[in-house]
Amino acid sequence: MGVSGVGKTTIGKLLSQKTHIPFFDADDFHSEENIAKMRSGEALTDEDRSDWLHKLNTMLVKQLQQDSCILACSALKQSYRDTLSANCTSQIKFIHLFGSFEKISAQMKSRKDHFISPSLLQSQFDALENPVNAIHISIDQNTAVMVEAIHHQLFNKSEIGIIGLGVMGKSLCRNFAGHGFNISMYNRHLQGVEENVAVHFQQQYPELNKALPFDNIESFINSLQTPRKIIIMVNAGAATDDVIQKITPYLSAGDVVVDGGNTYFEDTERRQAAFSLQDVFFIGCGISGGEEGALMGPSLMPGGNKAGYEMVQPYLEAIAAKDHQQNPCCTYISEGGSGHFVKMIHNGIEYVEMQLLSEVYQVLRQNGKNPDAIAAVFEAWKKEGVDSYLLDITIDILKEKEGDKWLLDQIVDEAQSKGTGNWAAIEITKQHVPATLIATSLYARYESAYKDLRVALNALYPVLHNAESPIAVELLREAYELARIINHFQGFWVITEAFKNHGWQTNMSEIARIWTNGCIIRSDLMQELITVFNTTDNMLLSDLLHQRIGQLKPSLSKAVSYAIENEIAVPCLSEAINAFNAITTAQSPANLLQAQRDYFGAHTFQRYDTPGGKFFHHQWKKS
Amino acid sequence: MGVSGVGKTTIGKLLSQKTHIPFFDADDFHSEENIAKMRSGEALTDEDRSDWLHKLNTMLVKQLQQDSCILACSALKQSYRDTLSANCTSQIKFIHLFGSFEKISAQMKSRKDHFISPSLLQSQFDALENPVNAIHISIDQNTAVMVEAIHHQLFNKSEIGIIGLGVMGKSLCRNFAGHGFNISMYNRHLQGVEENVAVHFQQQYPELNKALPFDNIESFINSLQTPRKIIIMVNAGAATDDVIQKITPYLSAGDVVVDGGNTYFEDTERRQAAFSLQDVFFIGCGISGGEEGALMGPSLMPGGNKAGYEMVQPYLEAIAAKDHQQNPCCTYISEGGSGHFVKMIHNGIEYVEMQLLSEVYQVLRQNGKNPDAIAAVFEAWKKEGVDSYLLDITIDILKEKEGDKWLLDQIVDEAQSKGTGNWAAIEITKQHVPATLIATSLYARYESAYKDLRVALNALYPVLHNAESPIAVELLREAYELARIINHFQGFWVITEAFKNHGWQTNMSEIARIWTNGCIIRSDLMQELITVFNTTDNMLLSDLLHQRIGQLKPSLSKAVSYAIENEIAVPCLSEAINAFNAITTAQSPANLLQAQRDYFGAHTFQRYDTPGGKFFHHQWKKS
Repeated sequence: MGVSGVGKTTIGKLLSQKTHIPFFDADDFHSEENIAKMRSGEALTDEDRSDWLHKLNTMLVKQLQQDSCILACSALKQSYRDTLSANCTSQIKFIHLFGSFEKISAQMKSRKDHFISPSLLQSQFDALENPVNAIHISIDQNTAVMVEAIHHQLFNKSEIGIIGLGVMGKSLCRNFAGHGFNISMYNRHLQGVEENVAVHFQQQYPELNKALPFDNIESFINSLQTPRKIIIMVNAGAATDDVIQKITPYLSAGDVVVDGGNTYFEDTERRQAAFSLQDVFFIGCGISGGEEGALMGPSLMPGGNKAGYEMVQPYLEAIAAKDHQQNPCCTYISEGGSGHFVKMIHNGIEYVEMQLLSEVYQVLRQNGKNPDAIAAVFEAWKKEGVDSYLLDITIDILKEKEGDKWLLDQIVDEAQSKGTGNWAAIEITKQHVPATLIATSLYARYESAYKDLRVALNALYPVLHNAESPIAVELLREAYELARIINHFQGFWVITEAFKNHGWQTNMSEIARIWTNGCIIRSDLMQELITVFNTTDNMLLSDLLHQRIGQLKPSLSKAVSYAIENEIAVPCLSEAINAFNAITTAQSPANLLQAQRDYFGAHTFQRYDTPGGKFFHHQWKKS
Repeated sequence: MGVSGVGKTTIGKLLSQKTHIPFFDADDFHSEENIAKMRSGEALTDEDRSDWLHKLNTMLVKQLQQDSCILACSALKQSYRDTLSANCTSQIKFIHLFGSFEKISAQMKSRKDHFISPSLLQSQFDALENPVNAIHISIDQNTAVMVEAIHHQLFNKSEIGIIGLGVMGKSLCRNFAGHGFNISMYNRHLQGVEENVAVHFQQQYPELNKALPFDNIESFINSLQTPRKIIIMVNAGAATDDVIQKITPYLSAGDVVVDGGNTYFEDTERRQAAFSLQDVFFIGCGISGGEEGALMGPSLMPGGNKAGYEMVQPYLEAIAAKDHQQNPCCTYISEGGSGHFVKMIHNGIEYVEMQLLSEVYQVLRQNGKNPDAIAAVFEAWKKEGVDSYLLDITIDILKEKEGDKWLLDQIVDEAQSKGTGNWAAIEITKQHVPATLIATSLYARYESAYKDLRVALNALYPVLHNAESPIAVELLREAYELARIINHFQGFWVITEAFKNHGWQTNMSEIARIWTNGCIIRSDLMQELITVFNTTDNMLLSDLLHQRIGQLKPSLSKAVSYAIENEIAVPCLSEAINAFNAITTAQSPANLLQAQRDYFGAHTFQRYDTPGGKFFHHQWKKS
């Protein structure tokens, strides 16, 4: 691509000779009318170009299905390039030839056979929209050097580079390579600990045979096509800062760095600000799906500068999971740290989903059911509207045996937690949004970690259990179903409120959509939410859910009171019904709280009979 | 005070002439034996001095009861000064005369009547422990100037300065002045908003007639005796930083600044680090008691450098509330931000206590009881072991009427929250200590603030209420009693764990003691905890509480299941029983959580049959 007279046909034909890839000239696809118009010195309109560009796109798609091709086409505007590359975006690479007006003008004058009038050159320069994601080649060098540079970028340089070959990084590399991308892979060299990691990894998997392995950061970065696209897959926090410090000296304006780690969103914003000083795009991209998701198709939540995102969009969409309509589970979230924010809340919802399953398991276990019997209960539930990835893996776990013993019974009951769960609980506190279940599920993990104390206190305060008859399994399922709805309500509520506070745009339905596959919290409910969020951001206000919630409520109340009277800890189920009761209470007892605050601290209160935000202090104490 | 020969008697007599305050010479109180020993050139032992110092102390206490006195006494060691000032610490001011060995030696040689041998002078210099909290006067000036300097410090300068005359600052000023301290009071000048605040305030209260009012910071600081003692009583955060920036240029090494605001403890540590560069002590002091407590006697929680604290100790102890044994409700907490940390958790416990009362109120209200009837219930409870300041004020609030209507019913049910509650919830999350009730009570306030949503959802999901017969009031009281015990258990648990993590020393019994009066969470239970914490830091492990907790447990279970089945939100009561059940469960379902985490994220788990912290990964998925 490039303005008329820049030398597209010359360079295209030379490249074709060198690579044996067939060459096409877009001018040969013009209609008689267009050719006549141009001969008369008149510029084509966008309408004139439309049929022509679609004809070229059809040709490209067909060629790419067989092999490849080289096309010379001015493609000055982004909209032209979008039409040209429709349905084959990730397979197309634009090579932009550029030079000064004077140089091109001189070149044109020396050419006889060209039917475009040199007087149109200025209008071409005016129309040119610089492509951000292209190989840029200056014409201030001889043609052989230009062809060599293009060849080097296309065939010796990778389209994308991945830093960090841990569980997730490795899976992503295989995913990219499996989709036909040329990748570079870097892992640090740590004497005696991490040596030749990238080389060994490459040798392990045939799909990586074209991938380039590195343990030298400068060589790694020089192996990438410009503008560079780099994905960081190392631990959040200090390790990420360390990588950034190492790569920064080698980056140029226009490069894009994607952080795929579970990073705290405020760190992402800090790094974006730093990178923007050298015009490098920094995208904070939440990635969910675990090891398997990263390999087979994760759910991707990218946030940051939109132009920067668009440069990596084809790559991310290609490796993402696909939803029920075969669209990628990847969508641009919003500016700043919004991508990592959404991933943090995703993990919060995940914590709760896991805890709810644990509580339901515990109730059934205390009712005397063994893991196989509980697995059978859950398998029956799958048909009743509570199916999810986490339910599936729980069934697998419950059935897993070592000899004739359940593996589950051998696992120590001290749960760990990593950054995102803590951050999510802290963030709801900062945002003043009572997504209480996220905090409750986190604290349940903390509680479990005090194993010695639990055992000591259990001896002092024996737990009765099994005092009543077993709970009706159907009632427990309904309780679980409503608790999950309340969990999702709260999770999306935090996103809605926090996005307002941060000034981020969002589309809840799109977020639900990219969570219907690839990620840990994919479920039938999530699929339903795509539609629910078309009319409201608040699940409890949805016409589609209202009746079901009303029907399920008594079961949640009963299941919780059953568990409490049988001394089984069910903190998330309990908080689910309490949160629901609190948010559906028109007159809460917070008037008493306000009176107390005013009594001892003169903190004032508002009155029903004086609306308009006026505050009053009362002299409560008589003395 | 000062070494022998420095001129104590000369200066003391001159000061006595100028002030008409009687003068005493400590040497006149020596026994025959001591005098003989000194004449022989032999140094007195500490044992020799003991009777003498006690005799002097008795004289001082007697004199101070009538009027005042000036005493010349070497008082070289801190232990001597402690004996001298016992029972009258806050009324005594040490004036330290100092000079070079050569100068004093020459002075001694020119004196005939003095019976101490000049050869003892070096041992006096060796014994001298420099007093930190004294007026230091150099003898390199003539005696008239020295006397003038002392007089100026004593009579024209204030002992302590208070910055910020809001509700709390004003009450503290009146409290200090009421205890006979000379104070300086500063409030900023804000044209048209805050003008002559200190002057007007002084004119309002007779106890402030000797207080010095300022709106110029330099004059305020120059009005203070050195080393200066300054208490900052402005809003936490930016306002505090602003004050610190203003006063810093005028401070000298050895000054003490006390921040009495509700400051985030990490801010306190940041400021301590900054002040330590100029050898200024910065004490973060939690103050609880509200407006009335600040005036009549608050509970004080000072933390930071201990030597710095000791300089303000007499002042803080004098204005603090008194416990049942008449000891001040003020104790040195520990280093760093520990004082503000403890205040933050105090407020967390307070949030829960308030929320529990609100929930109990709501249950009784939904049972058809009006506020007077509920007040009657609470008055009956006061005799049943749940008496507290917050219960008392709640009774007052419930009875308050405007005409024939309860004021409470006119108050809007949207609760607000300030810094400490949020910080406490965030801190338990960071510290991995599940003091769940603090977070739950905070979220209940957040929930209340969504009034419009609550009203909208109430229309969609009508609440049944009153479906069952009323709850037994006795059962509800027992539930409330246990929930309060669990709240206190959790609050002190956070302190214990956080202090370990921060490397702070603490004494839980002392913390309970200073919370038995003056502060918002004073109660009969707190009084009991002084004894409980003599044997354990964990209330649930206490022999004194064990039986009662066991007896109360069924009532809490029943009350919560009653509320839930009647669709009354009781988040804190619910979480209390769930937290109790969780921490007394020997085998939690967290093994399932760990299995899930290992399944999708390869996060590994521990096994019962392989102790010693070894972690395993299992290939769960069969494919």
